[in-house]
Amino acid sequence: MVELSKKSIPETMSALVFNGTLQVEKISVPRPKRGEALIKVDKAGICNTDFEIIKGYIPGFNGVLGHEFIGTVVESDEPHMIEKRVTAEINCSCGECGFCKKGLARHCSQRTVMGIINRNGAFAEYIVVPQTNIFVIPNQIPDSDAIFIEPLAAALEIIDQVKIPEDAEILILGDGKLGLLISFVMKCSGYSTTMVGKHREKLSFAKRVGVSVIPLEEFKNGAYDLVIEATGNRDALEMAIENTKPRGIVVLKSTYAGNISFNPSKVVVDEISIVGSRCGRFEAAINFLSNFNNRLPLSQLINKTFSLDQATEAFRYAQNPGVLKTIIDVNRVD
Amino acid sequence: MVELSKKSIPETMSALVFNGTLQVEKISVPRPKRGEALIKVDKAGICNTDFEIIKGYIPGFNGVLGHEFIGTVVESDEPHMIEKRVTAEINCSCGECGFCKKGLARHCSQRTVMGIINRNGAFAEYIVVPQTNIFVIPNQIPDSDAIFIEPLAAALEIIDQVKIPEDAEILILGDGKLGLLISFVMKCSGYSTTMVGKHREKLSFAKRVGVSVIPLEEFKNGAYDLVIEATGNRDALEMAIENTKPRGIVVLKSTYAGNISFNPSKVVVDEISIVGSRCGRFEAAINFLSNFNNRLPLSQLINKTFSLDQATEAFRYAQNPGVLKTIIDVNRVD
Repeated sequence: MVELSKKSIPETMSALVFNGTLQVEKISVPRPKRGEALIKVDKAGICNTDFEIIKGYIPGFNGVLGHEFIGTVVESDEPHMIEKRVTAEINCSCGECGFCKKGLARHCSQRTVMGIINRNGAFAEYIVVPQTNIFVIPNQIPDSDAIFIEPLAAALEIIDQVKIPEDAEILILGDGKLGLLISFVMKCSGYSTTMVGKHREKLSFAKRVGVSVIPLEEFKNGAYDLVIEATGNRDALEMAIENTKPRGIVVLKSTYAGNISFNPSKVVVDEISIVGSRCGRFEAAINFLSNFNNRLPLSQLINKTFSLDQATEAFRYAQNPGVLKTIIDVNRVD
Repeated sequence: MVELSKKSIPETMSALVFNGTLQVEKISVPRPKRGEALIKVDKAGICNTDFEIIKGYIPGFNGVLGHEFIGTVVESDEPHMIEKRVTAEINCSCGECGFCKKGLARHCSQRTVMGIINRNGAFAEYIVVPQTNIFVIPNQIPDSDAIFIEPLAAALEIIDQVKIPEDAEILILGDGKLGLLISFVMKCSGYSTTMVGKHREKLSFAKRVGVSVIPLEEFKNGAYDLVIEATGNRDALEMAIENTKPRGIVVLKSTYAGNISFNPSKVVVDEISIVGSRCGRFEAAINFLSNFNNRLPLSQLINKTFSLDQATEAFRYAQNPGVLKTIIDVNRVD
């Protein structure tokens, strides 16, 4: 195993650990096994999924949170990877099942998921990931954009799942982080894109890339080919269905705790499809950023950056209304 | 306009009329306009949608019920159609909108629907339909099979909407009329097909065409590529989702009154699609029957045949548990 410099890797590190409560702790630096690499984390983003875990909506996770990160490879079986600026696919899979063999390792039933299912995440000084999960970040993508690779992959997943006709009219419900990233992806992919949201200041980011934006109180029902539900509000599915053309598609991008209810009549009569959508391919997100990062106001979505020691404070801050993206900069010392 | 024999067409006819209550009445025989044909109805089938109308679940319909029928053309602009044994597509559309031009006239927003929306149906001695809606029934298809063309088209619609891989494992929930027809369609189309239902005697019809059948009380959860919900029971959507593989599809074929509720987590995490499905193409159903009618126990699904005068009694009978298909034979005199 090649490593950057043995003496530069300490025995212990700081990490944001969730075990029913959330705190920064000193834990052992993880050791990579064969086929794994050790990455020194540089920056990591706080995501809504992190809140769902600490609220108990996603039960069963104990360990280091965090799954949106960039870092530098410090140990790897592959010498050319050392010192590379990288990120990593969050689903760590068996590599052998039907899903893995079809390129859908994200659905491997044996998978662990960084900071979400049975695997430590990235709010830490170091993280171990399978080498096959690692993606080198091209030089032309700055850190402030690269930190969005994971959520951008989730936005691009819609294009992977749904064959969208060129002349499709797309409506996005919700002007949060994911809604905005989806609006960037759809507009840059050439689709006629409209976004409805409650917050004029958030809608303005979508407007900047050419998306038609409508404040919720001014929205009038219409008929769209594709409606993407990204509000996180369980009542929005009904609104999505209401605004979908016959044979159109509703993409369900939000996760919520508990059940949601809808009237199936319009779904059946108008033959509407409701498509659940989750993580996406990192290659697609990196290609997208390489092509479009100059057009996208990604760095402006970052409201505040905290040190790792301030991580619990960062979590409190990130849940304030109006906050889009909060970053933990592991190299920062306060 | 060519007609069979002017004197053979009376001024008035019997018809089963719904106007808040259901009764057989004498009404005027309808007169075809240009582009329409007059058909003497021979037989018509009672469908669950008819029950939904009389229960008020589908509001706003007043007129002659009935949308599954076979009959004989007696007046038409097209002389070669006279005396032909026919059926007709139930959606009567504008012919000019985007949906009509894409071959999806079933979704025309201007449409009337025979016996369902603003257009008299087939529980009558005569019915007027647009000539473009008429399909001649090939000789090799007996009446007892031809009466299933409309619901078979609805079953085949699933294949029109969803690209099903050859090796897909299909699960059908519900052993009612529609569930059975769907099981015939899927099995004859070469798919590995399993059906779960509450009624051993109904399941036996699916078993006869080679479908694997499982009584509900013996069913153990599994993972299927395609799960078709045809129970009419609003709790079944959760069961359908539970038994669908990641990236798999749930087809929602039942209509119900009111809302249904489901847990969206599995739909989003496993990227499941829920596809509403309604009416289908009559050509597909006629081709299917021409190819497979010898393999299908369709005539055995008919429990009882009534005269038109007994139509209200037929409706009461048809709602009894265990009844599959009830037919009204307009030529029968009691």
